[in-house]
Amino acid sequence: MIVVTLNEDADPAAVRRALVARGLWVETLETSGRVTHLAAVPPSADVDPGTLLAIPGVSDVAATPSRHPRVDAHPTAVRVGGVAIGAGAAPVLLAGPCSVESERQIFEAAERVARAGARFLRGGAFKPRTSPYTFQGHGARALGWLRRAADAHGLAVVTEATTPEEAGAVADIADLVQVGSRNMASFGLLAAVGRTGRPVMLKRGMAATVEEWLLAGEHLLVHGAPAVVFCERGVSGGGGSTRNLVDIAAAALLAHVHHLPVVVDPSHGTGRRDLVVPLALAAVAAGAAGVLVETHDDPGAALSDGPQALSTAELARLAAALGVHAPDERRARHG
Amino acid sequence: MIVVTLNEDADPAAVRRALVARGLWVETLETSGRVTHLAAVPPSADVDPGTLLAIPGVSDVAATPSRHPRVDAHPTAVRVGGVAIGAGAAPVLLAGPCSVESERQIFEAAERVARAGARFLRGGAFKPRTSPYTFQGHGARALGWLRRAADAHGLAVVTEATTPEEAGAVADIADLVQVGSRNMASFGLLAAVGRTGRPVMLKRGMAATVEEWLLAGEHLLVHGAPAVVFCERGVSGGGGSTRNLVDIAAAALLAHVHHLPVVVDPSHGTGRRDLVVPLALAAVAAGAAGVLVETHDDPGAALSDGPQALSTAELARLAAALGVHAPDERRARHG
Amino acid sequence: MIVVTLNEDADPAAVRRALVARGLWVETLETSGRVTHLAAVPPSADVDPGTLLAIPGVSDVAATPSRHPRVDAHPTAVRVGGVAIGAGAAPVLLAGPCSVESERQIFEAAERVARAGARFLRGGAFKPRTSPYTFQGHGARALGWLRRAADAHGLAVVTEATTPEEAGAVADIADLVQVGSRNMASFGLLAAVGRTGRPVMLKRGMAATVEEWLLAGEHLLVHGAPAVVFCERGVSGGGGSTRNLVDIAAAALLAHVHHLPVVVDPSHGTGRRDLVVPLALAAVAAGAAGVLVETHDDPGAALSDGPQALSTAELARLAAALGVHAPDERRARHG
Amino acid sequence: MIVVTLNEDADPAAVRRALVARGLWVETLETSGRVTHLAAVPPSADVDPGTLLAIPGVSDVAATPSRHPRVDAHPTAVRVGGVAIGAGAAPVLLAGPCSVESERQIFEAAERVARAGARFLRGGAFKPRTSPYTFQGHGARALGWLRRAADAHGLAVVTEATTPEEAGAVADIADLVQVGSRNMASFGLLAAVGRTGRPVMLKRGMAATVEEWLLAGEHLLVHGAPAVVFCERGVSGGGGSTRNLVDIAAAALLAHVHHLPVVVDPSHGTGRRDLVVPLALAAVAAGAAGVLVETHDDPGAALSDGPQALSTAELARLAAALGVHAPDERRARHG
Repeated sequence: MIVVTLNEDADPAAVRRALVARGLWVETLETSGRVTHLAAVPPSADVDPGTLLAIPGVSDVAATPSRHPRVDAHPTAVRVGGVAIGAGAAPVLLAGPCSVESERQIFEAAERVARAGARFLRGGAFKPRTSPYTFQGHGARALGWLRRAADAHGLAVVTEATTPEEAGAVADIADLVQVGSRNMASFGLLAAVGRTGRPVMLKRGMAATVEEWLLAGEHLLVHGAPAVVFCERGVSGGGGSTRNLVDIAAAALLAHVHHLPVVVDPSHGTGRRDLVVPLALAAVAAGAAGVLVETHDDPGAALSDGPQALSTAELARLAAALGVHAPDERRARHG
Repeated sequence: MIVVTLNEDADPAAVRRALVARGLWVETLETSGRVTHLAAVPPSADVDPGTLLAIPGVSDVAATPSRHPRVDAHPTAVRVGGVAIGAGAAPVLLAGPCSVESERQIFEAAERVARAGARFLRGGAFKPRTSPYTFQGHGARALGWLRRAADAHGLAVVTEATTPEEAGAVADIADLVQVGSRNMASFGLLAAVGRTGRPVMLKRGMAATVEEWLLAGEHLLVHGAPAVVFCERGVSGGGGSTRNLVDIAAAALLAHVHHLPVVVDPSHGTGRRDLVVPLALAAVAAGAAGVLVETHDDPGAALSDGPQALSTAELARLAAALGVHAPDERRARHG
Repeated sequence: MIVVTLNEDADPAAVRRALVARGLWVETLETSGRVTHLAAVPPSADVDPGTLLAIPGVSDVAATPSRHPRVDAHPTAVRVGGVAIGAGAAPVLLAGPCSVESERQIFEAAERVARAGARFLRGGAFKPRTSPYTFQGHGARALGWLRRAADAHGLAVVTEATTPEEAGAVADIADLVQVGSRNMASFGLLAAVGRTGRPVMLKRGMAATVEEWLLAGEHLLVHGAPAVVFCERGVSGGGGSTRNLVDIAAAALLAHVHHLPVVVDPSHGTGRRDLVVPLALAAVAAGAAGVLVETHDDPGAALSDGPQALSTAELARLAAALGVHAPDERRARHG
Repeated sequence: MIVVTLNEDADPAAVRRALVARGLWVETLETSGRVTHLAAVPPSADVDPGTLLAIPGVSDVAATPSRHPRVDAHPTAVRVGGVAIGAGAAPVLLAGPCSVESERQIFEAAERVARAGARFLRGGAFKPRTSPYTFQGHGARALGWLRRAADAHGLAVVTEATTPEEAGAVADIADLVQVGSRNMASFGLLAAVGRTGRPVMLKRGMAATVEEWLLAGEHLLVHGAPAVVFCERGVSGGGGSTRNLVDIAAAALLAHVHHLPVVVDPSHGTGRRDLVVPLALAAVAAGAAGVLVETHDDPGAALSDGPQALSTAELARLAAALGVHAPDERRARHG
């Protein structure tokens, strides 16, 4: 919020016009029936409060200080596992199965996603599941499979830690430690993940505001995370035709206003295989640095979230649509 | 919803895999402890129920019939005011001020938006305003200004009718009659607008599900509308950093699954001038047939919604980013 | 919003404590790194800004003026159709079928609801229906049935107008003209209903904030409505176990902070017959002046919303739980 | 979901009426244009599927089995720390400061809340805070203060564990271990808390459906929790006049349909001191077994959430309104 104080002889309507002209939504404040202040409130565009002092009639400008200075100072692009993510870099494809289901499955998945042009292999070893009676992941041993599968195909690894205890083991093998949406505000977990010193991919909580999401990033940075890649994966709502409501504007806001590296997960976001590609394209058009998608060689047999997994052929189409290239092609083009 | 009945000797797990492989989210139904049916529920991908009969173990497939047969039969692209909108056509830019503020303003606006490559001039004559004490529009006389301004620059017109009484007057001058989000479920208005026989642009209600939005389109078609262009403009939610929460996946769903012409309004959707261009690009990438944006030559002086209006220069940047061309250029390129 | 300006020698922390002690949520505003203002923002408790001047260190207090002065001046209780609604009055039961289905049905319903102790007969003549293919109400002729049925049993009438054209006919027979949730922001309808000069029952829109709801009331009052009874009927959300999400706190806010007559509709709010009574009791405990419920002598045969209709026996239980008495008993008790 | 299969000669409309009469919302399913099944979907009232076989024309009834059998078998009332919570017991008041701020503060708070008639002392030792720069709680040493303060005044203790590591220490001193809304779906925490063998108070997540909330309870029970008291504390939404949107119907649903012990937190739910009492009364009227409220002897000086804390006098008014009595009075009345 920004509050400007008016001079005694200011024309409040003129000052208001000048604020609106800068993209600010303005509320009028009165003292004894006279307009004395104007407040710029959300969803105002981003402006530097200092510049408002130049408006005739404005005597003073006060603003709420940022609550997340480390996030504000975060670079707009980062390099993780040898891959640049953020403004100026090519779109990054992070792909793989929802869960690591077996050593063989993840090796085959790595081969396929690498060939499609993905740079990161995803796959859950520790799975947060709504029901206690469904597959909860293979745990620690899946981490080794995941790392070796990725290494075999020149991929970086992103995988989730769901408790502080898991943070160390995950950080030992992951290039990017994922904090899931259900745990975005589990501050003990954020602290533990931050302390590992690994870059983090922070998914937005299902009911989190953008400000709460940025503050969760601040928790990570305060505790030692060297970098945070934000991941929009849909918030609750939307009325059921899609699994969640993908907030593409939030991704645009992080990319273009906060200048942060942000990716989008259209798989969880839509829950629909037939919408993953359009949403992935929308995300990148809006400024996202990449997309995180679920793939499976046999989606029907997936131990979790099969309906939203892309088949290998669909993954290839997505990669083509994004202009993402496999290593050989990359070499051929740039080498 | 689709319910498949299993044969007595079916393997429920195998049938489930086959359904999941098609992108369906499956619930299991039991009779006396035995799995007898599987139900495919939202957010399942779109499949033809008939094809599921081919799955071994399935004896019967029943599905909820569509509640909007006319919408289902609606063409995927329409021609309105000489402009093609929908699949296969170039992205359409519909632009202009929030309100028609004066005859002069709208003529100047028409000139600017035509030069930028817009094909439709927008501008409100009847304005639904949250407060009864703010500018409510110039009403019927603004309709004439709007039509003449559009004609002077070869533009089609889209403008809103807010009551059944206004429907006739609006339809007399508009190529596309807008039904606003606040009135999406004002069924008396939908009937009156449908009866005018004009094509309609139907904005999604702030809390409407996609199904309710399609059913509102059905109301229009039942009463005589020859065509409906759906407009996603954001639903309530999002936590305040943006004015609304633009549901880009809903636009993708209409374009790619329902095969309907759909446009997106990133101005009301975000309420932020600094996010209008990224969201417009995202919309088109997701399958939208065009974007509806607010512009003003002097946003600070706008009588409504100034903070989200693009300046003339910003509009030109948007047009360039969308690959939209002004008439002269169009002629030069295609002539 | 309230913004207090601090003296140069003020202790910001002390002023903050004084504001918090009054139930205010405080944001800090800085100029050149120094705290110069504190803003009280929603969801702060209601305080008179003038009283904050007494806090040591506060030099000035500015506040956003109310946008709905007529609503603010509205009485806390009103008398409609001979029935007192609001603070100080006994809880009022407004009951009847969702739709007026036939002359006979509404006469029988009137008899039953009167016997249960209801003071208002509800029943829709003009029905807003999501699908154009379901029963849309018997229209104008149902209004006469409704009035005569109510008169035969000493009841007042509440029924909905869905378009400006219907407003006059509805106002001719209704003691309380209902504006439905789908039309809460159909400002042309609000104006027409206001102009009839009848008291209005204004349902909250499905995505409306309390402020937008109050502003819709302001539209009614500006155009001539002599009184507005607000009706909370649930907002969208809640995850599906109930039809809508009843915002009991909004009813409490209107009753205890805005001092307005407010009733709650637990039938549409929950959509579940098995939750109507508990929610009705909760509403009255929170400060609601009454409850609007749907009843049907044969809910299975109802032409609309049968699953949420109370049977006659359930209505009697509700009346007993609310301490509502039928005319004879009222006479016996108070005569 | 329940799916009924129709006989070949069934009258689908008659079966539908019979289902609606039982409070079910019905979807029609067709095979080759003929109605073959009817599905009862949310928000249907609770019915025993088996009873539907008695409807003429129904050949078969299939239903989705419950995903939370342990929750379904949970008693409707439990005894925790010597206090009965649930159906049949008097409303329970759980009160205390948001945070344990000092040994002296919590002893004084215990004295006050006991005198008001509360049976549980609440107070956070480990505080989940949105910002990493605000007070995070005194941690383990606050647990000892809390226990001794409660013991000195005959109170039971409820306090939160935010990570698996904290679970043991919290369970050592708490009668009821709180899982907070931010961690409702932190399944590793649920497992750790369950394994302590202590009864748990499980707050609903900010975007959790009732089904997800019950499944979180199932996680606790699977891992060893002997009892779960559910706590509704508001979901996100509501438009800003209140901090959250208290879902009183969800509390009624748990109490009356699921027959579970449930309490409501009107302090976090509304964030407004001026609405805590009305919402507490509403909660109990709807079936809640008790209310969890924040109190502070000097709310302005509270280290967290001061604006929503009740003063000592307000707490006394709440207790009186709830009919809750202090120990001496309890003895005098019942002894």
